[in-house]
Amino acid sequence: MCELLGMSANVPTDICFSFSGLMQRGGGTGPHRDGWGIAFYEGKGVRSFHDPEPSCDSVIANLVKNHPIKSLVVISHIRQANVGSVCLENTHPFIRELWGYSWSFAHNGQLDKRLFDLPLTFYRPVGTTDSEYAFCWLLGQIRLEFPDRPDTSDQLTTFIHQCCEQLRAFGVFNMLLSESQYLLAYCTTKLSWLTRSAPFGEASLKDDDMTVDFCTQTTDKDIVTVVATEPLTDNEAWIAIKTGELVVFRKGLDQTHRLSPDGDEISF
Amino acid sequence: MCELLGMSANVPTDICFSFSGLMQRGGGTGPHRDGWGIAFYEGKGVRSFHDPEPSCDSVIANLVKNHPIKSLVVISHIRQANVGSVCLENTHPFIRELWGYSWSFAHNGQLDKRLFDLPLTFYRPVGTTDSEYAFCWLLGQIRLEFPDRPDTSDQLTTFIHQCCEQLRAFGVFNMLLSESQYLLAYCTTKLSWLTRSAPFGEASLKDDDMTVDFCTQTTDKDIVTVVATEPLTDNEAWIAIKTGELVVFRKGLDQTHRLSPDGDEISF
Repeated sequence: MCELLGMSANVPTDICFSFSGLMQRGGGTGPHRDGWGIAFYEGKGVRSFHDPEPSCDSVIANLVKNHPIKSLVVISHIRQANVGSVCLENTHPFIRELWGYSWSFAHNGQLDKRLFDLPLTFYRPVGTTDSEYAFCWLLGQIRLEFPDRPDTSDQLTTFIHQCCEQLRAFGVFNMLLSESQYLLAYCTTKLSWLTRSAPFGEASLKDDDMTVDFCTQTTDKDIVTVVATEPLTDNEAWIAIKTGELVVFRKGLDQTHRLSPDGDEISF
Repeated sequence: MCELLGMSANVPTDICFSFSGLMQRGGGTGPHRDGWGIAFYEGKGVRSFHDPEPSCDSVIANLVKNHPIKSLVVISHIRQANVGSVCLENTHPFIRELWGYSWSFAHNGQLDKRLFDLPLTFYRPVGTTDSEYAFCWLLGQIRLEFPDRPDTSDQLTTFIHQCCEQLRAFGVFNMLLSESQYLLAYCTTKLSWLTRSAPFGEASLKDDDMTVDFCTQTTDKDIVTVVATEPLTDNEAWIAIKTGELVVFRKGLDQTHRLSPDGDEISF
């Protein structure tokens, strides 16, 4: 199994604090020694780092931890391999282009062999993981259903949710997905989130001897949501996503409740 | 204009020495202040770094310079913007997947507006550069002509060469392209290469006060080719690629002469 970390914010925000907690689990406080990766969106662009080495002693992970890269959307993953060997091409997040957007995807869980019976269309895996296969299938399905980017997001998120439910039939499918503006989080077993906004307080990491007073680092208008396999802090109220639920974040806010067919005001 | 740097080797080799020279041109000894990027292949996987900041004072470029990442194929680029603003999504190398391979592309030169009349098929640009548009068109053409990866490379490289010639009709098109095993270099105006093999000697960088004795770092079996817009060293014999010529490297060796229709032994 693996661990996921995602962020959605309304102002460019670094993820150093949360990433410090996550990377300790990559061979330090956790068993996820089989590589790690992270994708930072800056506008439509995406900056990604991938490393098949354990994150807890990776030079590149140290750079990401210590060099603040500010972003509105981040997806990160540390890996404990089950399907597919430990190598660069099997390292999440996986990235493909659709509609002129770079889509990033990371998966926690394991899907059984029936997954590989699903027909692929436009995208093919470079590596050998169930995760990348699932991503190629999912994005291919989206592309078949929506040859162009739809104006509003309700039909699209409903469709993505249906695809996630199909994948869940094959096993554990916890997922983070983004195309640059939205962060989508789908849960089978374990995925929690937390929104930080004014008044900001202190947060202390479970996995590292580290406390941050967000009050000193933020303005009153900042809104930042963090999504993680397991809560990263031990003094904040994390919300567990339910089995089969898809939560959609934009600019740090949970948009899910606005996605009902009769109330959609969000353009995707 | 921009500067390109490519490497093809028969054993995993770091590019620290050549990259040190290139990154000085990114705002130091050269005017290419508008970002830089590099893609390292490890097997079928690719590890890429992109930064819209000048390479000469980029923290990430310093990591790449000082932390040896060993690879068989590398493509790097430093940018002086002409078409498209300075931002992450306009930073080379651009990457797309075809046949389950990650293709990387970097371009030096400028193509006129007629380029944008070429119809795109499978791939769309995320940013606004002429370079990414040309790459999306080129890869789309390859995909139309070869829905699956061909067994041998002669037809494919002949086809890629024809596409490059079409692009050259629109202006200056110097290009590096790879799918993980091959490094393809196409020249309109400026692109030179050099193969280092035993007996290795000393090389001294033009742009940095730095000399390397490859003898101490290599074995007799190592073969490494470096391709660059301008020769990076001042004491070695660089070969200039001719206008309209496509040179193909694999495992450090120039394979071009083996690509004649009656003598092809290379499987792509």
